[in-house]
Formats: sequence, structure tokens, C-alpha cells
Amino acid sequence: MFKKGNPYGTHRVIEPKGVLPQPALKVDNTMEIYDNEILINVQTLNVDSASFTQINDQAGGDVEKIKEIMKGIVAERGKHQNPVTGSGGMLIGTIEQIGPALEGKTDLKVGDKIATLVSLSLTPLVIEEILTVRKDIDQVDIKGKAILFESGIYAKLPSDIPENLALSVLDVAGAPAQTIKLVKEGDTVLVLGGGGKSGLLCLYEAKKKAGPTGKVICWAHREASLATVKELGLADVCIAGDATNAIEVYEKVMEATDGKLCDLVISCVSRPNCEMSAILATKDEGTVYFFSMATSFTKAALGAEGVGKDVNMIIGNGYTKGHADTSIQIMRESKELRDLYTRLYA
Amino acid sequence: MFKKGNPYGTHRVIEPKGVLPQPALKVDNTMEIYDNEILINVQTLNVDSASFTQINDQAGGDVEKIKEIMKGIVAERGKHQNPVTGSGGMLIGTIEQIGPALEGKTDLKVGDKIATLVSLSLTPLVIEEILTVRKDIDQVDIKGKAILFESGIYAKLPSDIPENLALSVLDVAGAPAQTIKLVKEGDTVLVLGGGGKSGLLCLYEAKKKAGPTGKVICWAHREASLATVKELGLADVCIAGDATNAIEVYEKVMEATDGKLCDLVISCVSRPNCEMSAILATKDEGTVYFFSMATSFTKAALGAEGVGKDVNMIIGNGYTKGHADTSIQIMRESKELRDLYTRLYA
Ligand SMILES: NC(=O)c1ccc[n+]([C@@H]2O[C@H](COP(=O)([O-])OP(=O)(O)OC[C@H]3O[C@@H](n4cnc5c(N)ncnc54)[C@H](OP(=O)(O)O)[C@@H]3O)[C@@H](O)[C@H]2O)c1
Ligand SMILES: NC(=O)c1ccc[n+]([C@@H]2O[C@H](COP(=O)([O-])OP(=O)(O)OC[C@H]3O[C@@H](n4cnc5c(N)ncnc54)[C@H](OP(=O)(O)O)[C@@H]3O)[C@@H](O)[C@H]2O)c1
Repeated sequence: MFKKGNPYGTHRVIEPKGVLPQPALKVDNTMEIYDNEILINVQTLNVDSASFTQINDQAGGDVEKIKEIMKGIVAERGKHQNPVTGSGGMLIGTIEQIGPALEGKTDLKVGDKIATLVSLSLTPLVIEEILTVRKDIDQVDIKGKAILFESGIYAKLPSDIPENLALSVLDVAGAPAQTIKLVKEGDTVLVLGGGGKSGLLCLYEAKKKAGPTGKVICWAHREASLATVKELGLADVCIAGDATNAIEVYEKVMEATDGKLCDLVISCVSRPNCEMSAILATKDEGTVYFFSMATSFTKAALGAEGVGKDVNMIIGNGYTKGHADTSIQIMRESKELRDLYTRLYA
Repeated sequence: MFKKGNPYGTHRVIEPKGVLPQPALKVDNTMEIYDNEILINVQTLNVDSASFTQINDQAGGDVEKIKEIMKGIVAERGKHQNPVTGSGGMLIGTIEQIGPALEGKTDLKVGDKIATLVSLSLTPLVIEEILTVRKDIDQVDIKGKAILFESGIYAKLPSDIPENLALSVLDVAGAPAQTIKLVKEGDTVLVLGGGGKSGLLCLYEAKKKAGPTGKVICWAHREASLATVKELGLADVCIAGDATNAIEVYEKVMEATDGKLCDLVISCVSRPNCEMSAILATKDEGTVYFFSMATSFTKAALGAEGVGKDVNMIIGNGYTKGHADTSIQIMRESKELRDLYTRLYA
């Protein structure tokens, strides 16, 4: 007999009561599933980069100490949520058991290999043993199990893409999928931080959707990133500069768009204080899509008001329907991007 | 001869260079206008509530000390930006001079009485004398001057609404105007914090737009606020509870909507940690409009991903076209709301 679970996993929250598994300090990681849960035999944890850096620092780079810290986190919280950064990561594993309440509701079957697309910071986890720590790409192979809640999102791993590459691409999958939804034919689109991991995928999809009558502008920081974008032909206009300098961004984008500014600005810069650049570069009634986690809500809200800009500002939801397929599809379509991602992030 | 100014007022920034007037530490408050500026003879400052509370505390409630602190801020920064809270407020005044470059571009003329709708935190200001401090409604009458930049937004004060009432309503004008843009006929709309200053105006407009086939739900904290909403007939369903308890909000909204959830959720709660409540109460592909300045960008972005919710999340821009007129119009249309606002906020 299976116990009845809540779709969001609130039945696993030990403390504090009333919250969801992500903000919870401790979740129940007993590996006996509820009727709407999925049990995963875990192969690899892809630890969030902020979290892994912190653990690595705390361990002074010592692999055995890293293992100890990671096991300690899971022992205390029942999930791999870094207590300093609050963040988690993703995992790869194989389906071991599916709760009966999910029959007919899920396309998964026992034996499927998946990547979870919900954060490790809310995923009940048990680590039996840590096998390998790959410090250069924040990945850790383990022997262990995890639970996926009914509302938890995942992607079946494709057979034609190496697992490490798939993991890296899936990490930023929300950005290109949202780009497809937001760009219309003929649009002028600016990607701030266009030379980074998420930015490149945004440029790629923006160019496809905007089409030959559109204009895609890449703003990057280092000339090297810009060179890559130019080489791959991912943008119609390439500009290098500091995206925190709002006036410079505004003036250069005015120039590049004959004073018309952009229908859509996507902010993928990993640093704070880029809100005003994104807002000023947008047309009245245009849209700013903030994918960067360094975005400040109040700086965006008061900033737009301060300059009297009637722009639509969107918070980058890490999830949108079909986002995993979209990002993996890019790796199939573009050999150039696949080679680049394999070199940089896999 | 007038000097040529930048529309955003960057020509007045003294330090640091390259930023806009709002993030600037010091702006030039010489009251000699550039060619695209407007000089205002200031009558009343409506200090932002967070800022006024801080100043009042620092002054131990002493009016003379409050005056001293306020003059000190302006002497140091050239604008009334509270160094602790970072925030400003609004002002009322009379147009004294209009730069020649604005001729034909502005509907203002010398002698018009306006409220500025851009923050005092970016408005060059000189205080010659502080006349009266009205501590209960954060308003301060002064003798002084201010500059409005070309991009600065304002509202002409209506002749049929008392000035103090107009100021209070204009403070939250963005919320009802955005509500009109977002609600469609037949929509189910939830307003979290619906009993507050901005929430009531949102309820009013949501009910008009959603029409008889729609459903408007008010979530309030205190029973007293709920009673007001019920009495004025501003919502179809009224629920009292703590909006930070996401599970309770989700369950009660499920019940109130026969399990369908909401097309639009508007968050007007003045406290943090309401992101998950708003997200869970929204239908897949529905919209969350975050008006509250207590919203956390990362909590919203990671929270939606964590529960696999494909919702559109919007940052509440304080400005949208026509927002001032919209909010003032409500005071003309609804005698009940006008009486209530006069009692509470004017
Ligand atoms: N919403 C979500 O669900 C979600 C999911 C994953 C990641 N994210 C966020 O997305 C952001 C980007 O992630 P990512 O993986 O694409 O990071 P990334 O590969 O490190 O890219 C960051 C980019 O920012 C650029 N940059 C840094 N400082 C700059 C400056 N001053 N001016 C202009 N550009 C600057 C870098 O440019 P150069 O290459 O030229 O130096 C780089 O291309 C991060 O903030 C991350 O938190 C969000
Ligand atoms: N985006 C912008 O441009 C802009 C402009 C102005 C203001 N704002 C923001 O909008 C928000 C609301 O402003 P306001 O003037 O409407 O404030 P307000 O009149 O103080 O209303 C706040 C409401 O929040 C409710 N509340 C407080 N704690 C609650 C809880 N735990 N559960 C449920 N409800 C709770 C209160 O309910 P009760 O009445 O039942 O106690 C009250 O009705 C503020 O955060 C403000 O910063 C934004």
C-alpha cells in the first residue's frame, strides 16, 4: 500500500511546516515512495556552480573533504541544498519505480534515463557513496537514490547527445525556449551577455524567429566572446562593452537601430546592475526578458518608472513547456554550436 | 542661451559618472534650466513612506530635527533621496519655466499645477524653507524649486479632486492601469493584499474588465480589510488568511475556483515571501503580476521552475501610459472608494 502524496511534495516537508520543499530546512528522504512519486537510481549530480564553488573553497580543493561536506549536507537536510548559497543543481539517473497514481499520467517507464529539471534544493536524496568528483565541470558521480515529485519536471536523455553536453545545455534551457515564444518575425532583438552559455542559445533562436527582416544584436563583454559570435554568424550586429553602463548601451543601441531601439531585450549577463541598460535599449511598449538571476526586482520596477518607460518586464521562469527539447534540438541543428559547447561546457 | 540637456538628465549627474540620476550619489541642483527641462515651484513633498518612517525615527519624532535631516539630504545629494532606504517620493508644484526645446512637445504651460510621477530620488531639488510637516500622511510643505527632466512623467492635478487625495491615489497609479491591460472578459482574477491602497483599485478595475462571466477573488489579511471589500462589493469571493502560506492559499483558491485556479494573480502584499502563493494560485500559462516591491526576483524565478509552472511573471512597472488618469478616474466613478480613500489616505 502506498501513502497518498501531494503533487508538490509538501508531504515530505519536516520543517518548517506549511512551506514547500524548496524553502524547507529539512525534508524526509526515506526512499519508500508515495503513490505519486518516482524513485530514481542516481548516477551523476550536476551541482549548481555557485554551490560547488563554495563547497570547493570550504574544502580547500581537497576531494575527500568535498565528499564529506556533500554527504553532510544531505544527511542534515535530506536534499543537496547548499546552506550558504541556498542553491542545488540537477541530476541524471535511471527510473527505478513509478508510483501507481501516475499510471497513464506519465510517459516514463522503469529503466528510462532522465535528467531532473527541478532543483536539487528540493529533491529528496540519499547518497550511499560518492564515486568521482569532476571539479572542472561541477559534476559528481554517486551511488544513491532520489525522489521526483508529481509536479517535478524532467527530460529523457537523448541517445544522440553525450550526457555531459546534455546536462550543460539543459541547465539554461529556459532561455532559448522563452526566446522562441517572445520573438516575432521582423523584430529587433538585443541579447545582453550574448556570448555566454545561455546568451548564445538565445541569439540562435532569435535569429531564426526574427528572420531576414529582423535584426539581432549581440552585446558582449570580452572581445573574445564577440569574436565567437561573429565567427558563428549568430548576430547581425556585434557590440563589445560594459553592460552595466546604461548610457553607453543606450547610445550604441540607438546607433545600431537608427534610433528605433529594440522590440525585445534579453538580459543574460551574470552580473548585477544591468537593469537600466536593458530598459533603455527597449522601445516603448517593447519587452525586457530578464533571464539573469542577478536581476533586482526593485531596480527594474523603479528604474523603468524613473525614466517613464512603458515596457513589459518579464521574470525569467526557468521552466516553460518543451524547453528541454528545444535546447537539445539546437545541439542537433547546429554543428558549430555543438562543437563550441562541447569544448567549453562538456 | 540654454545648454542642451539629455532626456534622462544625465547632464546633471555629478558622481559617479556614467550612471543615471537615480543611482547617482549627487546631482547638480542649480536652478538654471537646460533647454529640455522644466522648472517647478514646489509646494508639497510627498515623502515615500519607508523614507519618512526612517527620518522620523532618526529624529525621535521631533519636527525641527526632521526638517534638519531633510535639508541635510538635499544639501548633500542635490535631491531628496534617503541615504538609508534609497527611496524618494513625489511632489506637487506649479510650472515656472519650460525649456525652449520642449515647445510643441509638452502639453504643459507656465502656471499649471502638477504632481511629478518620477521619484524624488532622481529629481534635482532645492529647499529654501520647510513650512509644515504633516507627520500622519508623510507630507511636507516647502518653499523651494525642482527640475523635471524631458523623460520625467507628471500628472496635471485635476480641479475636482482634493490635492492630498490625488497625491495618495497617484502613488499607486501603476497597479490599476496594469490591471486594465491584463484582465480579459470572463477571467478569474485573484488580488493578494486586495484590501490595501493599491489592491482596492486593482479589484475595482478587475471587476469591471472581467465582467459578469468573470470571477474576482480578494485575499486579505485582517478581517477588517475583508469587511471593507465585502461592503463595497469589490470581489465575488473574499478570503482572509496569511498570503505567505503558499499551501493554504493554493488550497483555498483551488476550492474557490472549482480546481481551475486563476488566469491572473496580482500581488499587492506589502510583505516578503508571497511569490509561491501567487505562482501556485495561477493556471498553467496564466499570468502573475507582481506589484509589491517586496518581491524577490530569484524566489519567483526558481520557485516557478521548482513546481514546474509555466506561468508568465511580470515585474510591476510603476509607469504605464495613462496610469495617472486611470487612477484619478476611479475617484470620480466610485463615491464609495473616494470616501474610503479620503478617510484613510488623504
Ligand atoms: N532563470 C533561470 O532559470 C536561469 C537558469 C540558469 C542560469 N540563469 C542565469 O543566467 C545568467 C547567465 O547564465 P549563463 O550560464 O549564460 O552564464 P555565462 O555563460 O557565465 O554568461 C554570462 C555572460 O555575461 C557576460 N558579462 C559578464 N559581465 C558583463 C558585463 N559587465 N557587461 C557585459 N556582459 C557581461 C559575459 O560576457 P563575456 O563572455 O563577454 O565575458 C558572459 O557571456 C546567470 O545570471 C544565471 O544565474 C538563470
Ligand atoms: N511597483 C510600483 O511602482 C509600486 C508603487 C507603489 C507601491 N508599490 C508596492 O505595492 C505594495 C502595496 O502597496 P500599498 O500602498 O497598496 O500598501 P498597503 O495599503 O499597505 O497594502 C498592503 C496590503 O498587504 C496586506 N498584507 C500584509 N501582510 C499580509 C499577509 N501576511 N497576508 C496577506 N496580506 C497581507 C495588507 O492586508 P490587510 O489590510 O488585510 O492587513 C494590506 O492590505 C507595497 O509593497 C509597495 O511597495 C509598488
